[in-house]
Amino acid sequence: MNLKLIQQKIRTFRDERDWMKFHNPKNLAMSISIEAAELLEHFQWKNLEESEKHAIEAKDQIADEAADVAVYLIELCDNLSIDLEAAVHAKLEKNAAKYPTTKARGSAKKYTDL
Amino acid sequence: MNLKLIQQKIRTFRDERDWMKFHNPKNLAMSISIEAAELLEHFQWKNLEESEKHAIEAKDQIADEAADVAVYLIELCDNLSIDLEAAVHAKLEKNAAKYPTTKARGSAKKYTDL
Amino acid sequence: MNLKLIQQKIRTFRDERDWMKFHNPKNLAMSISIEAAELLEHFQWKNLEESEKHAIEAKDQIADEAADVAVYLIELCDNLSIDLEAAVHAKLEKNAAKYPTTKARGSAKKYTDL
Amino acid sequence: MNLKLIQQKIRTFRDERDWMKFHNPKNLAMSISIEAAELLEHFQWKNLEESEKHAIEAKDQIADEAADVAVYLIELCDNLSIDLEAAVHAKLEKNAAKYPTTKARGSAKKYTDL
Repeated sequence: MNLKLIQQKIRTFRDERDWMKFHNPKNLAMSISIEAAELLEHFQWKNLEESEKHAIEAKDQIADEAADVAVYLIELCDNLSIDLEAAVHAKLEKNAAKYPTTKARGSAKKYTDL
Repeated sequence: MNLKLIQQKIRTFRDERDWMKFHNPKNLAMSISIEAAELLEHFQWKNLEESEKHAIEAKDQIADEAADVAVYLIELCDNLSIDLEAAVHAKLEKNAAKYPTTKARGSAKKYTDL
Repeated sequence: MNLKLIQQKIRTFRDERDWMKFHNPKNLAMSISIEAAELLEHFQWKNLEESEKHAIEAKDQIADEAADVAVYLIELCDNLSIDLEAAVHAKLEKNAAKYPTTKARGSAKKYTDL
Repeated sequence: MNLKLIQQKIRTFRDERDWMKFHNPKNLAMSISIEAAELLEHFQWKNLEESEKHAIEAKDQIADEAADVAVYLIELCDNLSIDLEAAVHAKLEKNAAKYPTTKARGSAKKYTDL
């Protein structure tokens, strides 16, 4: 994924419309949540089987919602000088240390410690 | 962003723990929403100035939450064979057509059509 | 539910702390979403059976999260002079008209029209 | 707010349509989050002043979204035998103890401890 190109496109799109004034971190974080909920809506009343089936049938609409989340997330990181790629790798390493395979294997135990 | 490498790391992490059984589309979409809310929590009671200031001071924690959203989003797309990069470009083109610069310039009008 | 008493308690709590300045509609709506996500987190990786079981075991914590959503929702409505009780009844009537029993019976069809 | 009457109406509405099978705790918690996001959408790109103004102009639509959150929250609590009124009072007392007026006055400090 050419993140630099996408960031550049997002900046151009935003600045041609003079929308930077709306795109502060608070509003972008809100927008990520709102778009994430639209993605979630696809699976709202479906059981796991229906969700899997719907994911195939509505692949294009789901891709569209996923893109909305991604666009705002990429812009937020760009605006805050966050290196999203580095952050993702750091998080994956952190998770690997947090959930050693010997302990975590086949268990959702971790997830239940709310 | 080397999306293929990240997808591979996520798969390996997940499969070494036998967690695919939890990572159906419904659960991943839920997780994206939950992580998006944790990102949003950083700006919960702050006004725009405080949000900007906090975004600088808490850059690492915000990067961490942004990575959580990204990881689940990337995995969801991988599992559903969605090309996230292509979806992002398609969305940016769609938005450009939807909000012509002549009409949208400096206005958040579009956003108010709820 | 004595809504007036609860609203009065919320106002007193807020005003004794001089927090009205944080409790504008945008921030309250954000807080409802954030608390809703904390409620959702209880069911994050669980299938339906595990969710039902967890709902019984973690009843007190779930009640606590539900209360957080309710408190902010009640305050938002109070601040905006929205009669939440009337709004709920209006919505239930609207839904009854929208989903006639003859058509909607046993089907989640309605929900799939995303 | 006559919570018992509302709960009874929700049960009747649901059971006449044979929808209990969709209304498990996981799905209801998801629905609360989704509706909370629709409420949040009203304030998505607006600054505080615009949000206040919009809250007055779009009062009916906001009431409608608030009702959606309330309906699913009330049903979830009903299904889980959670006394929402008691939970709200317990939470308000807990908050009062957590944020003593002497310390919390005029400060959003509490909120920043993410």
